[in-house]
Amino acid sequence: MPNSGSGQAIGLAVIGAGYWGPNLVRNAQATPALRVRWLCDLDEVRARAVLGEYSTVGVTSSYADVLADPLVRAVAIATPASTHFELVAAALEAGKHVLVEKPITSNHADAVKLVELAERSGLTLMCDHTFCYMPVVRRIREMIHGGEIGDVRFFDSVRINLGLVQPDVDVLWDLAPHDLSILDFVLPPGTRVVSVSAHGADPLGTGRACLAYLVLRLNNGALAHVHVNWLSPTKVRTTMIGGSRRTLVWDDTNPAARLQVHDRGIDLGEDAALSHEARRQKLISYRVGDVVLPALPETEALRAVMAEFADAIATSRPALTDGRAGLRVLEILEAASRSLELDGATVAVGENR
Amino acid sequence: MPNSGSGQAIGLAVIGAGYWGPNLVRNAQATPALRVRWLCDLDEVRARAVLGEYSTVGVTSSYADVLADPLVRAVAIATPASTHFELVAAALEAGKHVLVEKPITSNHADAVKLVELAERSGLTLMCDHTFCYMPVVRRIREMIHGGEIGDVRFFDSVRINLGLVQPDVDVLWDLAPHDLSILDFVLPPGTRVVSVSAHGADPLGTGRACLAYLVLRLNNGALAHVHVNWLSPTKVRTTMIGGSRRTLVWDDTNPAARLQVHDRGIDLGEDAALSHEARRQKLISYRVGDVVLPALPETEALRAVMAEFADAIATSRPALTDGRAGLRVLEILEAASRSLELDGATVAVGENR
Amino acid sequence: MPNSGSGQAIGLAVIGAGYWGPNLVRNAQATPALRVRWLCDLDEVRARAVLGEYSTVGVTSSYADVLADPLVRAVAIATPASTHFELVAAALEAGKHVLVEKPITSNHADAVKLVELAERSGLTLMCDHTFCYMPVVRRIREMIHGGEIGDVRFFDSVRINLGLVQPDVDVLWDLAPHDLSILDFVLPPGTRVVSVSAHGADPLGTGRACLAYLVLRLNNGALAHVHVNWLSPTKVRTTMIGGSRRTLVWDDTNPAARLQVHDRGIDLGEDAALSHEARRQKLISYRVGDVVLPALPETEALRAVMAEFADAIATSRPALTDGRAGLRVLEILEAASRSLELDGATVAVGENR
Amino acid sequence: MPNSGSGQAIGLAVIGAGYWGPNLVRNAQATPALRVRWLCDLDEVRARAVLGEYSTVGVTSSYADVLADPLVRAVAIATPASTHFELVAAALEAGKHVLVEKPITSNHADAVKLVELAERSGLTLMCDHTFCYMPVVRRIREMIHGGEIGDVRFFDSVRINLGLVQPDVDVLWDLAPHDLSILDFVLPPGTRVVSVSAHGADPLGTGRACLAYLVLRLNNGALAHVHVNWLSPTKVRTTMIGGSRRTLVWDDTNPAARLQVHDRGIDLGEDAALSHEARRQKLISYRVGDVVLPALPETEALRAVMAEFADAIATSRPALTDGRAGLRVLEILEAASRSLELDGATVAVGENR
Repeated sequence: MPNSGSGQAIGLAVIGAGYWGPNLVRNAQATPALRVRWLCDLDEVRARAVLGEYSTVGVTSSYADVLADPLVRAVAIATPASTHFELVAAALEAGKHVLVEKPITSNHADAVKLVELAERSGLTLMCDHTFCYMPVVRRIREMIHGGEIGDVRFFDSVRINLGLVQPDVDVLWDLAPHDLSILDFVLPPGTRVVSVSAHGADPLGTGRACLAYLVLRLNNGALAHVHVNWLSPTKVRTTMIGGSRRTLVWDDTNPAARLQVHDRGIDLGEDAALSHEARRQKLISYRVGDVVLPALPETEALRAVMAEFADAIATSRPALTDGRAGLRVLEILEAASRSLELDGATVAVGENR
Repeated sequence: MPNSGSGQAIGLAVIGAGYWGPNLVRNAQATPALRVRWLCDLDEVRARAVLGEYSTVGVTSSYADVLADPLVRAVAIATPASTHFELVAAALEAGKHVLVEKPITSNHADAVKLVELAERSGLTLMCDHTFCYMPVVRRIREMIHGGEIGDVRFFDSVRINLGLVQPDVDVLWDLAPHDLSILDFVLPPGTRVVSVSAHGADPLGTGRACLAYLVLRLNNGALAHVHVNWLSPTKVRTTMIGGSRRTLVWDDTNPAARLQVHDRGIDLGEDAALSHEARRQKLISYRVGDVVLPALPETEALRAVMAEFADAIATSRPALTDGRAGLRVLEILEAASRSLELDGATVAVGENR
Repeated sequence: MPNSGSGQAIGLAVIGAGYWGPNLVRNAQATPALRVRWLCDLDEVRARAVLGEYSTVGVTSSYADVLADPLVRAVAIATPASTHFELVAAALEAGKHVLVEKPITSNHADAVKLVELAERSGLTLMCDHTFCYMPVVRRIREMIHGGEIGDVRFFDSVRINLGLVQPDVDVLWDLAPHDLSILDFVLPPGTRVVSVSAHGADPLGTGRACLAYLVLRLNNGALAHVHVNWLSPTKVRTTMIGGSRRTLVWDDTNPAARLQVHDRGIDLGEDAALSHEARRQKLISYRVGDVVLPALPETEALRAVMAEFADAIATSRPALTDGRAGLRVLEILEAASRSLELDGATVAVGENR
Repeated sequence: MPNSGSGQAIGLAVIGAGYWGPNLVRNAQATPALRVRWLCDLDEVRARAVLGEYSTVGVTSSYADVLADPLVRAVAIATPASTHFELVAAALEAGKHVLVEKPITSNHADAVKLVELAERSGLTLMCDHTFCYMPVVRRIREMIHGGEIGDVRFFDSVRINLGLVQPDVDVLWDLAPHDLSILDFVLPPGTRVVSVSAHGADPLGTGRACLAYLVLRLNNGALAHVHVNWLSPTKVRTTMIGGSRRTLVWDDTNPAARLQVHDRGIDLGEDAALSHEARRQKLISYRVGDVVLPALPETEALRAVMAEFADAIATSRPALTDGRAGLRVLEILEAASRSLELDGATVAVGENR
C-alpha cells in the first residue's frame, strides 16, 4: 500500500464485531481519510470472521492494546450501550477521537461527563446518528432551515417492522433514537422538545415494551409523534413533516418517491389577528398544488458518517452530530422511559436532572 | 312503477341534503326493499338539486309532514350531530324506524334515552357505521371472531388526509368514529376499550384539534391506537391488527392488496409458565411465512347498510350496528374528548356517567 | 323543473342500455346543457331497469319513434359496433347530432360515409373517445403541444387486466381503441402513425386474440407500442411518453401519482452534426432531475364528453374527438387486424383503402 | 489464514475489474469453497483500486501468469463479450474451469466450440446467468416445473430504466439476455423458443437500438414478449407468467410483494372438444381467487452463483446454467438481432446455423 496515503490517513480502530461493527469496518475502509488498524472484540474468532480471510486489518481482544497503539488516533465504538461510558471515557483519556453508536450512554449524567471530557481535551466526540447522514435527511434539513416549508406544524414518524426482540433494551431505546436524532437534526435552530408522553405495550410478555407511541411537545407549540413497533409484519418507515407552506413526506421504503414535497395545504393568510371563528371560515377550502420529488444522490449514509468523522478530526470542528446532539436525544429518551413507567403521564424533558 | 314492488317495499324518507344525504338517497334507491318517498331539508332548493331534474322523489322542508306520512315507515337522518337527539326522538315517537349518522348524539345521556325509547317501542334504531359494512371489514371480523388470527395483540389505525376543517366538530369527532366503530365491530365478543388517552394539536389556531392521537387500552390488556389528521397532504387509511397467529394489514388506498394476511410473527409456544427471560430467549428468531391477499367482493358499503336496515326492520332483529353500538362508540369519544382537555391524561371509558 | 333550463337544453336520446349506456344516461342527466328524453333499447325491461324506479326519462324500443321526436335533437349511441353504421346514418339523415361509441364503425368505408354525411348536413358527429377527456390526458396533450416535453421519442402503453372475453370482438378491438385514440389526441399536429405490426395469441382457444402487442411507426421516426391483454390477473394501465426534454409516466392505477413528469434523461445537446460515435461518447452519463406530479382536477371524463358534445352542437364547431378522429383510429385498427392475420408483418396504415 | 480451509478451497482468478468484476470478487471471497487468488486486468491500477488497500488478493495484468498458476483451478471472466471466446478457450485449454459472463460469446459458432471443448475436457463451463439464481426465480421455476401454475399461456417481461448507452452493444444485447436466460430457466423441459420478431428504435441517433420489443413464439404455441429500454426514467422490472391454473407476477422493484401468485383467471374446464363458440360462451365470467405472496429468502443471487460454480466443479456435474444454456440464449439473441435488421420480420431460432 502507498506510504503517503496511509501516513496521512487517520488511524482507526473499530470496537465491537457484533451487528453494526462490520458496517463500520466496511465503510471506514472505503474512506480514504481513514486507515483501519484494528477490529477489537472480546471474541477474536468473531472479529476474524467479520474481516474474512482476505484482510490485512489486525484483530485483537485487548482494548488496552488498541489505546496504546500510537498509530490509532480514533476509535469507533459499536458495543452495547451499557459499556459506552467506560469505553468512551478510556479512549478520550488516551487522547483518541471517538465515534460512538447511539445512545451515547445509558444515562444523562454519564453522557454529560463524556461531553465535557471531550471538550476539555479538544477531542472529537461524535455520535453515529446514521440516519442524519442520509441524503434525504440532509435535504429535509436544508429545506426546513432554509424556510422552504415554512413553520413546522407537526412531525409524525413511523418506524415499524418485524424486529428481533432485543436482549437488553426495549423498542423505545432500540428504534426511537433514530427518529429522535432525525427530529433533533432537522428542526430549525432553537426549536426543541419540551415534554414527552409515552405509551407502550408488551403483548408477548417479554418484560419490556415491544411497541410504543411517543407524543412530543415542541417549544414552538407543535406536536411530534413517533410510532415504533417490533411486531409489525410489514416494514413502514414514513416521516411526515407538516409546514405552513409545504409538507414533506419521506417514505424510505419507496426509492422511486423517497421524498415528496407537497405544495398542498390550508392557507390562512398573514393576518395574525384573525379570530378562531374567522380562521375557521377561511378553512372551508384548501389548496392542492403540485408534488415535487427532488432528485437525491444515492450515497450510503454510513459512508458520509465516516467522512464527517474524519473531517471533524482534521479540522478540529464539532461534528454535525456531536456529543451534545447525543445528549439531547438521550434526554428525550430518558423522559420517554419515565413516562412509559408512569403509564403515559407527561414528563418534562430534562426534569430528572 | 310496479305496484307490487312498491307496495311491499319499506317507505323511507331521507333527512338532510348536505354532504352525506345524497349518498343515502342514491343507495336507498338502489335497494329493492326500500322505497324512497321524500328528501327533507330546510333548504328545499338544495334538496331539489340533490335529486336532480329527473327524479320522482318528493321534496319537503317539513319534518312534521314526513313523520305524518303513513307511507313513510322509516327515516334516514344525515343532519348535524347536534340535531340528532331531537330528530331521532321525534321519529321514534312517530313510530318510524331510524337509521342515523354517526355519532348517534352529542352526549351519552341523550343516546341512552334514544336506545331505550327504540327498545321500548320495538323499533329499529341503527347507526350508519358505514365502514363496518365494507366487505373488507366484514372479512376482518370473521377472521377475528373465527380465531384465525389468534388473540388480538394490538390495533393501529391511521386515517389522515387533507380534509376540510369542519365548522362544528374537531378532527376527533369527525374522523375517529370510523376507527372506533370498526374497532367495536371487529373485536371478539367481550373485548372492549376501558380507557383512553388523547393528544391533539391545533397548529392553525382554529380553536379545535386538527390532528389527534388516541391511545386505547382494551380489557384484555392489548393496546389500540388511532391517528387522525386533517392536515396530511397524502391520504393514508391503514389499519393493522396484530394477532398471536397472524397479523392483518388493511390498506384501503391499495385496491390490489386491500387486505393482507401475514403469516409472520413471533412464536412463543404454548408454555404459559415461561419467565420473562425465557420468553426473551425464545424471541431471538421469528417466523416469516406467506402473505395471503383474500379475494373480496367489490360491493359498496352503503348499499349493504341499506340492505341491513331494511332486513332488520323486516325481521324485527337488532341491526348489526344498532343503537347500543353507537352508544359504545360515543362513550369512547367522550372519554377521548375529556382526555384531550386534560392534556392526554388517561380517562376511563364510561367514568363520566 | 324550471322551464327555462329545459327549454334551452338539448334534447337527447341514449340508444343502448347495455354496459356503457347507463353511464351515458347518468352523465347526460348531470349535464345542464342536455336534457335526456329517452333511453332506447330493443329490450325495454332492461332499459327500465337501467333507469330505475325513480326516473322521469322515457323508455322505448322504437328507434324510429326516437328519431321522429322533435324534442330530440341529438342521440348518443352505445350499441354493438356492427350496428353503428345503420344507426348513425339514420340519425344524421333525421337531422340529429350524434355521439357514437368507439369504434365509429366496423370498417373504414362506412366511417367515411358517415363523416361526409355529417359534414354535408352541418351536424355534429362526435366519437366517444372517453379517455381523451380525462384531466390527465388533457394535461398530457397540453404539455406535448406546448413543447414542454420536447420531441416525442417513444410512446408505450400497457392496458391489461382480467377482462371478459367479448362475444363479438378480439382484445385488439376491445381495448386498443383507447390507446390509439389517446395517441391520436396527444401527438403533436402533423405527427401520425404510418405503419403497424401486430402480434397476438389466443391461448384459450376462443377463436380470437386475447392478448396482443402492437408496434406502431410514426412519421417522425418514433416508435409507439401498445400491449393489451384480457388474461392478466392484475390491472396495469400505464402510458409512458418519452420526450427529448422530459418523459411523462401516466399510471392510472395510482391516484396519488397519476402523472409523473420526469426531468431526467439523456442530453445530446443541439449539435445535429454529431456522428454516431460522438453521440455515443456523450451518452456515458445522464441527467437525473426532479420529478413533478402535477395537480389534476378530479372530474369524470364522461361528464366532460357530454359537455363537449353539447358545446360542439351549440357552437356548430367540430368536437375535439370528431368523426375524423374516429376515422384515424379506425384506420390503425384495421391495419393492426390485417397485420395480426399476417403473423406480424408490417402493414401501412391506410393501405387497404 | 487456516491452511485446512484454503487447501481444500478451489483457487479462483477473477478476470476483468470493470463494472461486474468487483461483484465477482466480493461474492467469491464470501464463498468458503472458493479461494480468490488473483484479480487480473490489463489496467493494474484499476484492479488494485477494486481490491482496496486492505486485501491480500494478488493483482496482475498477465492472463498467461494466471493460467500458469497451479493454485488457480478456475477463472471467472467479466470482460467485454468480444473477448470471451479467446479468454475462455485459453482457460479451458489450460485445464481451468470457467465461469463466464453473458453472453457466452458474440456468435454461435464460437460458443459451440467452447461448449464442445469443455465437454471434451471434462471441465465445468458455466454461464453467469445471475438472475436465475435469485430466490424468486428459483421459486418460479419450481412452481412451473411442479405443475402449480398449469400450462404456460404467456410470458411478458419488462426491463426498463434509465441506463447508460453502452459503447459496444445495443439494448438488446445489454438487457434482453437477462429475460431470455430467465425464460430458458423457468420453462418446462421441452418447451423452447422457435422464432423471434424484434422491433427497435434509436431515437437518440446513436447508431444502435436504445429500446426494443421482442415477440417470441414457443413450440407449445404460447407467446412470450420482452420489452427492454434504456430511456425510461422509471425502473420497471416486471415479469408476468400466465398459466392455465395460476398466474405469476414478479415485480422486482417491490420487495414487499416481489412474487404474487394469482389464483385468478378464466377456467375452461377439461373438455378439449369444445368448439370456439362453446369456449367463448364459457368465458362470460371468470374466477377471482386469493393472491398469495410466498415468503422468499433474501439471499444475494451472485452468492448462489458462486456456490453453484464451486459445487459443479467439486462434483463434476453440469452447472444449472451451463454452456448449453448460454448457447440457447445466444441463438435467440442472434435471431432477434437479425429480425431487428429486417424491420421486425419473423426469424426462426437457429436458422442461421
